[in-house]
Amino acid sequence: MKPTLIKDILVSQPDGRDVTVYGWVRTKRDSKNLVFIQVNDGSCFASIQLTFDRDENAKNPDLENIENQFKKILTGASVKASGKLIESPASGQAVEIKLESVEVLGEAGSDYPLQKKGHTVEFLREIAHLRPRTNLIGAAARMRSQMAYAVHTFFQERGFQYFNAPLITASDCEGAGEMFQVTTLDLERIAKIGIEAGSKGMDPAKAANLVDYSKDFFGKKASLTVSGQLEAETYATALGRVYTFGPTFRAENSNTPRHLSEFWMIEPEMAFFELEDDMDIAEEFVKYLLNWALTKCRSDLEFFDSRIQKGLIETLTHVAHSDFARVPYTEAVKQLEANNDKFEFKAFWGCDLQTEHERFLTEQIYKKPVMVYDYPKEIKAFYMKQNPDGKTVRAVDVLVPGIGELIGGSERESDYDKLSKRITELGMKVEDYWWYMDLRKYGTVPHSGFGLGFERLLRYVTGIENIRDVIPFPRAPKQCEF
Amino acid sequence: MKPTLIKDILVSQPDGRDVTVYGWVRTKRDSKNLVFIQVNDGSCFASIQLTFDRDENAKNPDLENIENQFKKILTGASVKASGKLIESPASGQAVEIKLESVEVLGEAGSDYPLQKKGHTVEFLREIAHLRPRTNLIGAAARMRSQMAYAVHTFFQERGFQYFNAPLITASDCEGAGEMFQVTTLDLERIAKIGIEAGSKGMDPAKAANLVDYSKDFFGKKASLTVSGQLEAETYATALGRVYTFGPTFRAENSNTPRHLSEFWMIEPEMAFFELEDDMDIAEEFVKYLLNWALTKCRSDLEFFDSRIQKGLIETLTHVAHSDFARVPYTEAVKQLEANNDKFEFKAFWGCDLQTEHERFLTEQIYKKPVMVYDYPKEIKAFYMKQNPDGKTVRAVDVLVPGIGELIGGSERESDYDKLSKRITELGMKVEDYWWYMDLRKYGTVPHSGFGLGFERLLRYVTGIENIRDVIPFPRAPKQCEF
Repeated sequence: MKPTLIKDILVSQPDGRDVTVYGWVRTKRDSKNLVFIQVNDGSCFASIQLTFDRDENAKNPDLENIENQFKKILTGASVKASGKLIESPASGQAVEIKLESVEVLGEAGSDYPLQKKGHTVEFLREIAHLRPRTNLIGAAARMRSQMAYAVHTFFQERGFQYFNAPLITASDCEGAGEMFQVTTLDLERIAKIGIEAGSKGMDPAKAANLVDYSKDFFGKKASLTVSGQLEAETYATALGRVYTFGPTFRAENSNTPRHLSEFWMIEPEMAFFELEDDMDIAEEFVKYLLNWALTKCRSDLEFFDSRIQKGLIETLTHVAHSDFARVPYTEAVKQLEANNDKFEFKAFWGCDLQTEHERFLTEQIYKKPVMVYDYPKEIKAFYMKQNPDGKTVRAVDVLVPGIGELIGGSERESDYDKLSKRITELGMKVEDYWWYMDLRKYGTVPHSGFGLGFERLLRYVTGIENIRDVIPFPRAPKQCEF
Repeated sequence: MKPTLIKDILVSQPDGRDVTVYGWVRTKRDSKNLVFIQVNDGSCFASIQLTFDRDENAKNPDLENIENQFKKILTGASVKASGKLIESPASGQAVEIKLESVEVLGEAGSDYPLQKKGHTVEFLREIAHLRPRTNLIGAAARMRSQMAYAVHTFFQERGFQYFNAPLITASDCEGAGEMFQVTTLDLERIAKIGIEAGSKGMDPAKAANLVDYSKDFFGKKASLTVSGQLEAETYATALGRVYTFGPTFRAENSNTPRHLSEFWMIEPEMAFFELEDDMDIAEEFVKYLLNWALTKCRSDLEFFDSRIQKGLIETLTHVAHSDFARVPYTEAVKQLEANNDKFEFKAFWGCDLQTEHERFLTEQIYKKPVMVYDYPKEIKAFYMKQNPDGKTVRAVDVLVPGIGELIGGSERESDYDKLSKRITELGMKVEDYWWYMDLRKYGTVPHSGFGLGFERLLRYVTGIENIRDVIPFPRAPKQCEF
């Protein structure tokens, strides 16, 4: 039965050959003599049109059966249809199928939720199991798949090894705090409703109801990872160049269009790369992804350009051909301070850049992507390489128009003593990082990496506003359906 | 600094050009006049040899510095080395570098755990952060990366869309039971040591200490997924052909060389594919992966062939060129019953095939891969398409020599009434599957899919016995280090 995909049929010569398609009916128009049916199989944005001329088929012995099938065809029905592939007189489509036989495989009643009319994205999220059958979510899903393959191809072509960081972890190395706990303890047997309130009056000794993690699956407290970077460093300092591309979790109580509790991250990590090399490859990576989208996802992109974000294709094309600006944080802050009257949060040296600052830099000042580097150490992570000035670290953020920060990266501190001192300064314990420190103890090397949130990239290349629409089944506070 | 990879240098012409390499020292041999240093950068199995002739360099003004660097070079040190690329007189390597300058970037002391000697795999697991620097784990890691890219390329070339199933789920649709719970409830505040023991004497009303999940992050009990299949079906019945490739979890208390608590699964799902199409593509997939391994991972594979499993390359080559046998379960069981004297567990119609049965079929009877199909419905999942005989379902397992079951798949039940009846028969509730049932309610189509455990594939193509050595940081009961 294995069907030919409609995307392949649509680019075939209309030479009258016999073709059979399988798909779902998007629309049916039934006039006196003519029936037009649009069939989509999800392989591409476009549907293929089936046309049936009753006059021509007046003596077709199978006519009664075909008419019976037509009666069963409503929006959403699945069909198998055969006929001759011919040139289409209609505009916007090169070919169509002159229908000879059609069979309804599965009907869809008038209660089918995706009738031909506009639906709000909020409604579509409630039927996330059916929404990929819409233009919007179908296109987003294909873009997601294409961009994922672009990510793999970019790195594989450049000698990177794909590295799978562990998802369940007993270390809390980034100190992010907001982690999901993973357990097989029976909460029903160790928990009582109301004990939380009751515990407020308890004496401290009784309140110290420590959980006996020796009985838990891993014999200790375990959580879902917030980043695979530290583990990726262990492989980068053995295999040279690696990249992660996998799920990451954040138990942050943020119900916004920009946050998910479960999302996919891309984290390349490269031995013998200094910050300049890191910036070079980050720039090359972004351009590669945009070029891939522009060439391999064209019809989906045209939909986004016309229906979601006007000018999207022009914007992406511009960025794909720009040389990214590179500016030290200190200089960027000076430029922002000169425009502080325009900002809700005033910029000053030492501040963490807000999205309004980032967008101003890339949209107003440079009018192209900007890589800001050498940030104050206080606002960046402990593992970043310290500059000789004692104040800044070799961090870089890649800012793009329309979105602000797309990528965050750094050269990593490779000096055992400096790293150890910084960990202690921050009130953490060096011994908790014993394996991370080992990388600085045995054959340490300069190395760098960066992180890109896959869904943020997808918002950027599709123009889709809400991050929940670029992932199949979004997870967020109080949201875990399907 | 961005270096040229050693894998690229090793296939270059030895034309005396200047090259610079960055990597880690595997060995150093220092004789009277000659120094030989093997440097590996993880980009490929082989190291590159640096040679230094003291006689030739007697008048080199930099000699003292070079000698000082040599003193610092022990196994595990990281170096930057430059010289001329020349033909190597040594056997087993085409080129070597006539050393002109060398700089130690990071020393490794004599306490470096990976001194030049054999290490047990058990020891290496204790230093999982350093073990990719060994031949064995380095090769396994490169194979893993290559096989992952082969998976993506196979599906992308065939019009499949990559689909990311959710990891955190509130449904327990497979009924697998052994799931990890995901929570942000504070276990310290709802749990007391000893309450489990104490609860045994409690009256049932008091024992019903129900957890108030409205206070949990998702507002309900949530777990880590055991399979993305049901969600993949929602996308297959919209986009046509999809595949998952992501982490999956099983909280099974199995401490064996074949089980992990966290592993990666590949689950393609295809609309308009019947069981025969499913078998066709499963066979094509396995052969494609083996051919990829045989051609693109040759040097790593040669290591496995010579050190881990003699004859591995021959075995894989044979399978890659075999037509897989296809035999109904009923016939397979007859063949097994005729050999019941050889089995610990006697085969009979209705039994779930044991690994000993599977291996006997593929190794002794057919001497090539075998696809057994049409299994008794009692031993297979509820969603599999029911055969007209009322006894069997359209399931298929792909069995390969040396390992037994590699792939399990089926055509899915697409008939609403039959599926609904089966769910009820099994004591489950149809309403819990409302969204899954919707796929049968609106435009249902024949569809099929299968699952392949990525680490099982890796054990198969590398010959590595213990599954913990084909994943960077294995998770298993009481094991969650790094």
